[in-house]
Amino acid sequence: MLTTQPIPKQLVRLDQIHEPADIRGLSVAELEELAQEIRDTIVQTVSQTGGHLAPSLGVVELTIALHYVFDTPKDKLIWDVGHQSYTHKILTGRLEQFASLRQYKGMSGFPKFKESTYDAFETGHSSTSISAALGMTLAKSLKEESNRSIAVIGDGSMTAGLAFEALNHAGHLDKDIIVILNDNEMSISPNVGAVSSFLSRKLTGKTMSRVKAHLVEKLQISDVGENILNILRKSEESFKSFFTPGMLFEAFKFDYIGPIDGHNLDDLLETLETVRDNSTGPVLIHVLTKKGKGYEPAEENPDIFHGIGPFDIVSGKPHGSNGTVSYTKVFGDTIIDMAVKDKRIVAISAAMVSGTGLKEFSEKFPDRFFDVGIAEQHAVTFAAGLAAEGMRPVVAIYSTFFQRALDQIIHDICIPNLPVTLAIDRGGVVGDDGPTHHGVFDYSFLRFIPNLVIMAPKDELELQHMIYTSVYLDGPSALRYPRGSGHGVPLATELKKLTIGKGELLLSGDDILLLPIGNRVYPALEAAKELKKVGIHAAVINPRFIKPLDEELICKWAQHTGKIITVEDNSRLSGFGSSILELMSKRGLYSVQTCMLGHPDTFVEHGPQKKLWENSRIDTPSIIRAATKLMEREE
Amino acid sequence: MLTTQPIPKQLVRLDQIHEPADIRGLSVAELEELAQEIRDTIVQTVSQTGGHLAPSLGVVELTIALHYVFDTPKDKLIWDVGHQSYTHKILTGRLEQFASLRQYKGMSGFPKFKESTYDAFETGHSSTSISAALGMTLAKSLKEESNRSIAVIGDGSMTAGLAFEALNHAGHLDKDIIVILNDNEMSISPNVGAVSSFLSRKLTGKTMSRVKAHLVEKLQISDVGENILNILRKSEESFKSFFTPGMLFEAFKFDYIGPIDGHNLDDLLETLETVRDNSTGPVLIHVLTKKGKGYEPAEENPDIFHGIGPFDIVSGKPHGSNGTVSYTKVFGDTIIDMAVKDKRIVAISAAMVSGTGLKEFSEKFPDRFFDVGIAEQHAVTFAAGLAAEGMRPVVAIYSTFFQRALDQIIHDICIPNLPVTLAIDRGGVVGDDGPTHHGVFDYSFLRFIPNLVIMAPKDELELQHMIYTSVYLDGPSALRYPRGSGHGVPLATELKKLTIGKGELLLSGDDILLLPIGNRVYPALEAAKELKKVGIHAAVINPRFIKPLDEELICKWAQHTGKIITVEDNSRLSGFGSSILELMSKRGLYSVQTCMLGHPDTFVEHGPQKKLWENSRIDTPSIIRAATKLMEREE
Repeated sequence: MLTTQPIPKQLVRLDQIHEPADIRGLSVAELEELAQEIRDTIVQTVSQTGGHLAPSLGVVELTIALHYVFDTPKDKLIWDVGHQSYTHKILTGRLEQFASLRQYKGMSGFPKFKESTYDAFETGHSSTSISAALGMTLAKSLKEESNRSIAVIGDGSMTAGLAFEALNHAGHLDKDIIVILNDNEMSISPNVGAVSSFLSRKLTGKTMSRVKAHLVEKLQISDVGENILNILRKSEESFKSFFTPGMLFEAFKFDYIGPIDGHNLDDLLETLETVRDNSTGPVLIHVLTKKGKGYEPAEENPDIFHGIGPFDIVSGKPHGSNGTVSYTKVFGDTIIDMAVKDKRIVAISAAMVSGTGLKEFSEKFPDRFFDVGIAEQHAVTFAAGLAAEGMRPVVAIYSTFFQRALDQIIHDICIPNLPVTLAIDRGGVVGDDGPTHHGVFDYSFLRFIPNLVIMAPKDELELQHMIYTSVYLDGPSALRYPRGSGHGVPLATELKKLTIGKGELLLSGDDILLLPIGNRVYPALEAAKELKKVGIHAAVINPRFIKPLDEELICKWAQHTGKIITVEDNSRLSGFGSSILELMSKRGLYSVQTCMLGHPDTFVEHGPQKKLWENSRIDTPSIIRAATKLMEREE
Repeated sequence: MLTTQPIPKQLVRLDQIHEPADIRGLSVAELEELAQEIRDTIVQTVSQTGGHLAPSLGVVELTIALHYVFDTPKDKLIWDVGHQSYTHKILTGRLEQFASLRQYKGMSGFPKFKESTYDAFETGHSSTSISAALGMTLAKSLKEESNRSIAVIGDGSMTAGLAFEALNHAGHLDKDIIVILNDNEMSISPNVGAVSSFLSRKLTGKTMSRVKAHLVEKLQISDVGENILNILRKSEESFKSFFTPGMLFEAFKFDYIGPIDGHNLDDLLETLETVRDNSTGPVLIHVLTKKGKGYEPAEENPDIFHGIGPFDIVSGKPHGSNGTVSYTKVFGDTIIDMAVKDKRIVAISAAMVSGTGLKEFSEKFPDRFFDVGIAEQHAVTFAAGLAAEGMRPVVAIYSTFFQRALDQIIHDICIPNLPVTLAIDRGGVVGDDGPTHHGVFDYSFLRFIPNLVIMAPKDELELQHMIYTSVYLDGPSALRYPRGSGHGVPLATELKKLTIGKGELLLSGDDILLLPIGNRVYPALEAAKELKKVGIHAAVINPRFIKPLDEELICKWAQHTGKIITVEDNSRLSGFGSSILELMSKRGLYSVQTCMLGHPDTFVEHGPQKKLWENSRIDTPSIIRAATKLMEREE
């Protein structure tokens, strides 16, 4: 299905770049030519592999300038999130591997220690770069080395508490650290938050400096009387409107430089060289870039081209999907249907409005929709506040990012037992983004929390009923559903409440009990069908609830068959299967033989979901093999 | 051991206060008298029960003023952390119960829904109040109600990312929310961070307003030339020094009022009334208070009196401890011994310098010690940065607060496999602080993480060897040890490396295998001794490692005895016992009978550790009963 595109005219120069040292002798004109070649290569490759196109196109010049000015890899470049690191990868000896970007066993879409010594820190989730750069700076200081640590962080990533904690600490320590604020006025969805609107108030360097000048000049005059003081105290007029981006960071004791044009190599080189040669202490350079720069479709739709599958270069159209509706879409549509009828329903996203299927909700119910920015902790505690006052908040966040809100889930939702729905999208392996983004730990980090009900649907219809069940539960609950298409079943004409803690027997059988959960139910049913052909009669239960378990149903069939195979798109440790073992132990069903299928105790690499399910032995053939093996066992 | 103290002279007035409405008719002089009575009551009670004395004494007037001015409970008061809520509890009908503060089955030390409708939100961990208040504000807005939500938050709590995320979102939403910044220049340890030193630059309201006045006045003049601009751009002179506390919050689009004297009821009432009657949108009131106010020993040592056990009122001396050295102290001393010999060792605390035993380290190695403030996420990622550059960081945080850093542990430490030591203090139940502070989930939320080695010592000597083992491991590891005294064993003369994944057989026995972990090892040994008297011969293994397990040793004795009892000071779900069940399943040791002892699937209430161990059936008598029961079972 790949379109045939003309190979970029010449890659001679780029071919000659094996390491950053090779660009350090080039002229600005040559660097500009290089930038064009890099853009062509990125667009060409990502059109075939898919990937984070818009972020990477936005920082081509910035990346060149950083490697030109700084002594990498001795100086450390830390790419926040890391999805914008394609130019960095190309410049650091990975041009040849670049075609394997995000392909199974190919190059990662994020910085990785094992790929290159130029990858100074591994990233994937947002807002870690300042903390890491600060740690590196301190290490260098303690070792009495003088190299620099440079964090490149987007304006969206700045909304996360982690970035703030790091800024605050960096200002306190007052060591040499360089933060490049890559300001493209949007992270993945357009940004929200006071900081963001603050940054976008681009007074231009001129106006800003003018304000500064006035202050410096006029503050020489002194002793303004008590009257003015009192007037101001009571005045409605706030000082807000005089703020400039720099002031925010200077409040954190950073020297602020900018904003500068992130696509102008002259400006970039001059500024970075000045900082390199003159600056001490924490410094923030504010760089303005355009997401998708140089590729028109991406410039026009940076949202769509943030992370994209294979697409046609000329039209900018993505190659077709299979047409089956996704779990995410079903979630979004169902919440809308419910919200029409119930004003208490509000929805919350953490900078993933489209990704979590809430775009339409946000347009239909602007007052009842909250994009809190990249702020998962706040998303959950904010929901707790809404719930405490009678609302029914639904917090939709990817599984991997819910890791950031564990304490808030325990402390603010589950201890006070508040009715908040955690909509956990991208549960299970996500595919090409790899280990930093797979959602294979959520059963494990949620199921020990008292008061929390946890469900996982076998298909998109069941998801609908689970959403309904969850929202009308008088306590906290989590719904976990996978990335990608549903099973293609017809959707509900009417939503219904499921009985909490009740599973369903899908198939009777005397020989063995298959206990799959969520997206593993259909593969297990398929396996049961195949097993029947070889004379093995498997019972299949869809437990629906990871917690509370349908203890009666499960124990009944466990005793009847004497053998259980659990299957989950989650780690084999501490997960759903583990809860079944606990149940057997609690009930004293010691003679039941068990086999747990799930992801192994290693970080799962990137690759197509299907391949990863196969590798982790949670697909249909693996279930068949496991069942056959368990049947062969001596009683 | 309680000292006999004179009953405060008269409680007549306080006795008459059954709800906040009862104070709303009083004069300022009467309120001041009330404040004194409340102080006496708090000091008197906490001297007997123990508790968070200094924070509560600091906000007596503030609490009175808030309840006086606002229409509680319709207006919502959210106490950040909640340890300062004693006056609030006394004023809201809980004077009689106050003597039961933090006692088993008595009143909680934190706000609880079940205690009072005036407890608008449950707290315990820091920095949640602005998020919660914002959620409540939005709910009220959607319900078209006009009541206020008021968050009272300390300056220490402001260093947490969660507070920043909430400020950022609040500034964006521009709804009515009142944040009271309770600035006592220290949280638990003295504060760190740019924000803190920023706040402490107390220019006084006058100077600050003067700066404002100048700006407003002078900015009318315009068009300053390009020259000044350029001079400023290149100038070393930064703008930092002109910042005032208000500007920081105004940057987040809050109206800023203050600083005002938090012990002056006239000022407090006037300011709060003005805000109540005139303010719209987000407003922050900066209130200066003194921790421990009104009780000299607490004013002088707010650190010691932050949270304290029973003490003598006259001398301010705490009643004696049992004299056995604590795990925390052994940790701190051992790290110092190691750091003397190895410059790569650095230590990190998140605002709990004394609490984690690092005070002496911080004094001996000021360059290699980092208190990052209440910023657990940053603590871990900062450590990752240090480790990536060759340091050996040790991050010491209480178990319950490590819940805030799960994503950073997974994403920044364990995926890149960096040698960071997580020193998890207060693992297991902590006692009087109750459900928000027990550390009973850490085995569960850590053991599924690939690459992470997890250890728990049976006593303080083993802790020493584990610290050594952990610091010199080429990957991430976690040490989990309990609150309180060690076992009283002699300490090491020389530290040694334990073999990763090797446990120790403490006792041979043919009938049953006891598998306790951490602080449950000695109680299990005790149980084995008792069981022997009734003819049950228990083997006892100290596994040392939750991960990796000593599979050979455990399986050998599991097979030999055919019966296992696991014991842990952790939830029974997903924890250590669960890992043993997984091992039995993996090895096909289906015939082994198991019984898992651990905390049940409910939040454990507050009370003495011993009582809580008994309740959760993880003490010696419970182990004996469980073993006896399992032995009685038909094979």
